[in-house]
Amino acid sequence: MQVNDDLKWMRQALDEARSALFLASPNPRVGCVIVGVDGVLAGRGFTQRAGGPHAEVMALRDAARRGCSVAGATAYVTLEPCSHQGRTGPCCEALTRAGVVRVVASIADPNPLVGGQGLARLRAAGVRVDVGPCATDSRELNLGFFSRMVRKTPWVRMKIAASLDGATALANGDSQWITSPAARKDGHAWRARACAVLTGIGTVLADDPRLDVRAVETDRQPHLVVVDSALQTPLDASLFIAGRTLYIYAGVENNEKKRVLEERGATVVVVPDRHGKVDLVAMMRDLARREINELHVEAGSKLNGSLLRDGLVDELLVYLAPKLIGEGLGMAQMAPLADLSQAYELDFNSVDRVGEDLRILARLLGRDCF
Amino acid sequence: MQVNDDLKWMRQALDEARSALFLASPNPRVGCVIVGVDGVLAGRGFTQRAGGPHAEVMALRDAARRGCSVAGATAYVTLEPCSHQGRTGPCCEALTRAGVVRVVASIADPNPLVGGQGLARLRAAGVRVDVGPCATDSRELNLGFFSRMVRKTPWVRMKIAASLDGATALANGDSQWITSPAARKDGHAWRARACAVLTGIGTVLADDPRLDVRAVETDRQPHLVVVDSALQTPLDASLFIAGRTLYIYAGVENNEKKRVLEERGATVVVVPDRHGKVDLVAMMRDLARREINELHVEAGSKLNGSLLRDGLVDELLVYLAPKLIGEGLGMAQMAPLADLSQAYELDFNSVDRVGEDLRILARLLGRDCF
Repeated sequence: MQVNDDLKWMRQALDEARSALFLASPNPRVGCVIVGVDGVLAGRGFTQRAGGPHAEVMALRDAARRGCSVAGATAYVTLEPCSHQGRTGPCCEALTRAGVVRVVASIADPNPLVGGQGLARLRAAGVRVDVGPCATDSRELNLGFFSRMVRKTPWVRMKIAASLDGATALANGDSQWITSPAARKDGHAWRARACAVLTGIGTVLADDPRLDVRAVETDRQPHLVVVDSALQTPLDASLFIAGRTLYIYAGVENNEKKRVLEERGATVVVVPDRHGKVDLVAMMRDLARREINELHVEAGSKLNGSLLRDGLVDELLVYLAPKLIGEGLGMAQMAPLADLSQAYELDFNSVDRVGEDLRILARLLGRDCF
Repeated sequence: MQVNDDLKWMRQALDEARSALFLASPNPRVGCVIVGVDGVLAGRGFTQRAGGPHAEVMALRDAARRGCSVAGATAYVTLEPCSHQGRTGPCCEALTRAGVVRVVASIADPNPLVGGQGLARLRAAGVRVDVGPCATDSRELNLGFFSRMVRKTPWVRMKIAASLDGATALANGDSQWITSPAARKDGHAWRARACAVLTGIGTVLADDPRLDVRAVETDRQPHLVVVDSALQTPLDASLFIAGRTLYIYAGVENNEKKRVLEERGATVVVVPDRHGKVDLVAMMRDLARREINELHVEAGSKLNGSLLRDGLVDELLVYLAPKLIGEGLGMAQMAPLADLSQAYELDFNSVDRVGEDLRILARLLGRDCF
């Protein structure tokens, strides 16, 4: 019975965590449900914006607001409570101070430097601790955070809009609009959950996109990352949006261009490879250091191909429109394969209809095994 | 209540009709259920092989075998019973002679020369006749037959196996095997329901395929059609299978080649266009005259493109493998579009997982409106 109850409450905690989908970055999306000694829900909450309270504190506040006692209560948290004094106080302490006697956590904190310390601290305070319920769901919801902590690189999701026959643009470059308004709106929801959106200078020069979230409501805009080897981003580009963090990665040093771009509000990072292009692997490591969990790529087939070639893509978010275009630009520029065994192998994680289009989430085989 | 009962029994009749999926060609797939005056099923049956009994006769025989009386019974038939003396006697007569007093038909016979005569004959014999339940399903099940009768051209389904990014073969031509064994087996079930499988001489020369049904059980093999403008089909090609009807469509007269191919068992039909190629529109009309209802295309991207260009494709049966291939052969060779509005517009009718692959049935917009 307790196992069933634990699952039931943890699923509710997960629902809370999902409410933080667009919000928590760069923190993980965490939910907390506190159940009183009477077996009734006392409080619930989820991680707020970075710098705001964590899920546990929100749930304690919710219980107080409802006038529910948490003495002797059990707290269900989708991630190990923190034990460090960050921007907010340690959650372990808040829980024990409030009288919580049992903590059930989905999964330990993936940060190798802090993982387990929260649980140990709770146990040392005499709190009964169990770990495990809904661990897979909790990890999946925070795959970007886990990736950054464990692999030291973001979880990279490449968004592609194409016709059924795989064309992302006509041979003449025209790509507006292959997919339907419903698919474009859905795409904005995926932007909204990302820590940052990445594109290439080719797309900037061709389409002058804003790449912000407009079609869905969000309290937080993702950062923007531009791969711009030769620092060609025009100063009047639409991507300069007041208040948004913008990283421009370059492959050459050019102090004058760097200065004017930084005056426009960008942060220019030079990570050259041997050919004066952007070293994409180094860029990803740098983005992880800048606390990017989920990176949402909306780029052209050339940059898509480079990211794939360098082994940096974790999954594809593909919208297929019910159209045949024939000759055109493909999803990703790749060198011709000599053999079918050289193809990138995927797993179709989910397939859904979005308006008249299909949305296929396909993971590169084995990428989530870290 | 009677409306509900009619639907219930007609759905059972449709199930019967579906049993004739691989069998009835070139006749329509028809099912019949006879319900006695006691409201209990008396007999059921479906169309047998061409020349064999129709569904109504099979159901009457089934009732006799069970010892069930059909005096005063109602017959549910998914298509208007025939009134003509074909290879079998007219079904109208068989039903009235057996004492059936009511006939419910899904839909009238689409043949403009005979449609309505069966129903009229039944009414003239004092039988109560209703038409309509499950009409859409019955028509859909026999879309090829309806197409041949109404449009005088087969229903053309183009099968394509591709990677998620739309490659049907590597740039070097290698295409074996992009999709999984499960998808290939599923593809054989679609071959089995077709009246004929069509391919081009390019595929014959490159792959030497048999294009028969092997992976699923069937009592009937579809015919084979080869588009072979210059009559290059090798006499030792694997497609020569004893007993199978083989049509080779040519664009040039060549009596010597025609003679040796016909000695091998083929029927050579010359339908030239102005360039000495096969006139594909004329070929389709000829195939309809040869009683081809559903035509299953498994061809290369060049012939696929020509069939699309000539407006001859009704739907696509696309298997997408979870792979990225990049540069390679596409689904259909088309001239570059100047504008997105020139793209072929489709409707995703169904999307299913088949093994690790996706199967997408996509209909060209409006093609089924005839």
